[in-house]
Amino acid sequence: MEEYLEEKSLDGSVAQSFKMIETLHHSHSKYQDIKVVLTQALGKVLLLDDIAMISDKDEFIYHEVMTHVPMLSQEQTRRVLVIGAGDGGVIRELVKYRSIKEITLVEIDQEVTNVSREFFPKVASGLSDIRVNCVFEDAIDFVRKEVENVSSKYDLIISDSTDPVGIAKQLYERDFYADINSLLSKDGIFMCQTENPFYDEYNIKKIYQDLKSEFQIVQPICAPILIYPGIFWTFAFCSKTNSLVEISSQKLQEYNEFSKDLKWHNPKWQQASIHLPNYVTKSLGLSEN
Amino acid sequence: MEEYLEEKSLDGSVAQSFKMIETLHHSHSKYQDIKVVLTQALGKVLLLDDIAMISDKDEFIYHEVMTHVPMLSQEQTRRVLVIGAGDGGVIRELVKYRSIKEITLVEIDQEVTNVSREFFPKVASGLSDIRVNCVFEDAIDFVRKEVENVSSKYDLIISDSTDPVGIAKQLYERDFYADINSLLSKDGIFMCQTENPFYDEYNIKKIYQDLKSEFQIVQPICAPILIYPGIFWTFAFCSKTNSLVEISSQKLQEYNEFSKDLKWHNPKWQQASIHLPNYVTKSLGLSEN
Repeated sequence: MEEYLEEKSLDGSVAQSFKMIETLHHSHSKYQDIKVVLTQALGKVLLLDDIAMISDKDEFIYHEVMTHVPMLSQEQTRRVLVIGAGDGGVIRELVKYRSIKEITLVEIDQEVTNVSREFFPKVASGLSDIRVNCVFEDAIDFVRKEVENVSSKYDLIISDSTDPVGIAKQLYERDFYADINSLLSKDGIFMCQTENPFYDEYNIKKIYQDLKSEFQIVQPICAPILIYPGIFWTFAFCSKTNSLVEISSQKLQEYNEFSKDLKWHNPKWQQASIHLPNYVTKSLGLSEN
Repeated sequence: MEEYLEEKSLDGSVAQSFKMIETLHHSHSKYQDIKVVLTQALGKVLLLDDIAMISDKDEFIYHEVMTHVPMLSQEQTRRVLVIGAGDGGVIRELVKYRSIKEITLVEIDQEVTNVSREFFPKVASGLSDIRVNCVFEDAIDFVRKEVENVSSKYDLIISDSTDPVGIAKQLYERDFYADINSLLSKDGIFMCQTENPFYDEYNIKKIYQDLKSEFQIVQPICAPILIYPGIFWTFAFCSKTNSLVEISSQKLQEYNEFSKDLKWHNPKWQQASIHLPNYVTKSLGLSEN
């Protein structure tokens, strides 16, 4: 009998499934169940507690959107903090910029990184860059300690976390956004994923309301993620001063050195993305642009 | 046991399912099996030969994109031909423009229209407009006859058809595009749906190659359709002279009279949509914009 990798929405009303070829890895870390499954349509898929995280087929979309949108919007990005993202995909995109001096990855579960290095070596490739410092601890604790260390500021913070449930729930709360905000430099940017507006399993209006209460500028951007139920996905660009429409010419020069190899992102797409369809603007509780 | 309405990709590698509440209608017309199913996530869904056509939840996206994108790009639209679309959704959007003089709907299966009137009265509402002429016959035959009638020209032709298989296969062939082209007025526009670029079940590059061999201007536009497997969907705007970026100020005036009620479309979104992500441009075999 054919076996399918299935993922349902929280209320069970929608499901998405991918025909499996074989299970390549299955382990239990201190924090979660970790699987790597080979599928016909998507190649290898990484699952944490049976929730799909990345796939060979579409990981580039998530990682390019989360990284290049904020990077191009900032004149200088020297220190970057990445939360979650133990697979290394965001790091792979970040290390393409020679001007970044220091990248700290805070991932609660070192086993995710080990599994990614073994089964997704291209995704994990940036982790061995000399500028990358991996810290395996709870991001909430790490961020709180950093807030107390007033001299530590980041130009860019990327929260590459799972849905707002279980160990990731606190990463979507207003207190956490306030901590993030206080860790950002004067023209600092915070980037995070903000779920699907159609099935709205996690109160997307509340997420945006909380983000807006902490950040001067909050701009949503949409892109498809094939492994997430609902596919049509939103991401939030949050900053103190910058808009994702204003692209730094200095940064663009650096970006142009590698951009021919990007599979999703281009500057015109980024700038066009602020013109949202009415449904999305309304679902996020935002006024029209 | 819970029952799900499931739709698989052609090769069975991807499936999407929606929890069913009940089947509201099931009949067999001369051409196909017709069902209306009530689902938890999408409300009512219309299925032809078990392929989902429209749902209460997201029908506005398809219908607004297919209609308002070409309408805003044309100075004057007097005669419109709509192929397929027996549910009436495209017609509902078209009749909002008072300046349209005549709309011909060619649908092979009258039973689809009857079922839509009964179960989707809001979608079918435009069908009773005095300017609408419903012709129940094979669109291929209708178009061929119209081509011979050299005095019959249309400003806009919208092909709202199912996937390029079975009775709809010929609607995606180059001969058909040539017939369509010869039926269009000097600044005529042709609009059609062009499938999903990720799973690419129907050779999307070939569809665009054929469209480009017949039309001077071919511009893809993307929007999510929740009921289609893959969700991330493409549509082609094809014309002799017009670009979807250039919006007619005369038409915009008319559009502004009802646009506050549109749930997806707005002119800025339309104009921004030509800036495609790299993956889509490449998948469609188009050069970068």
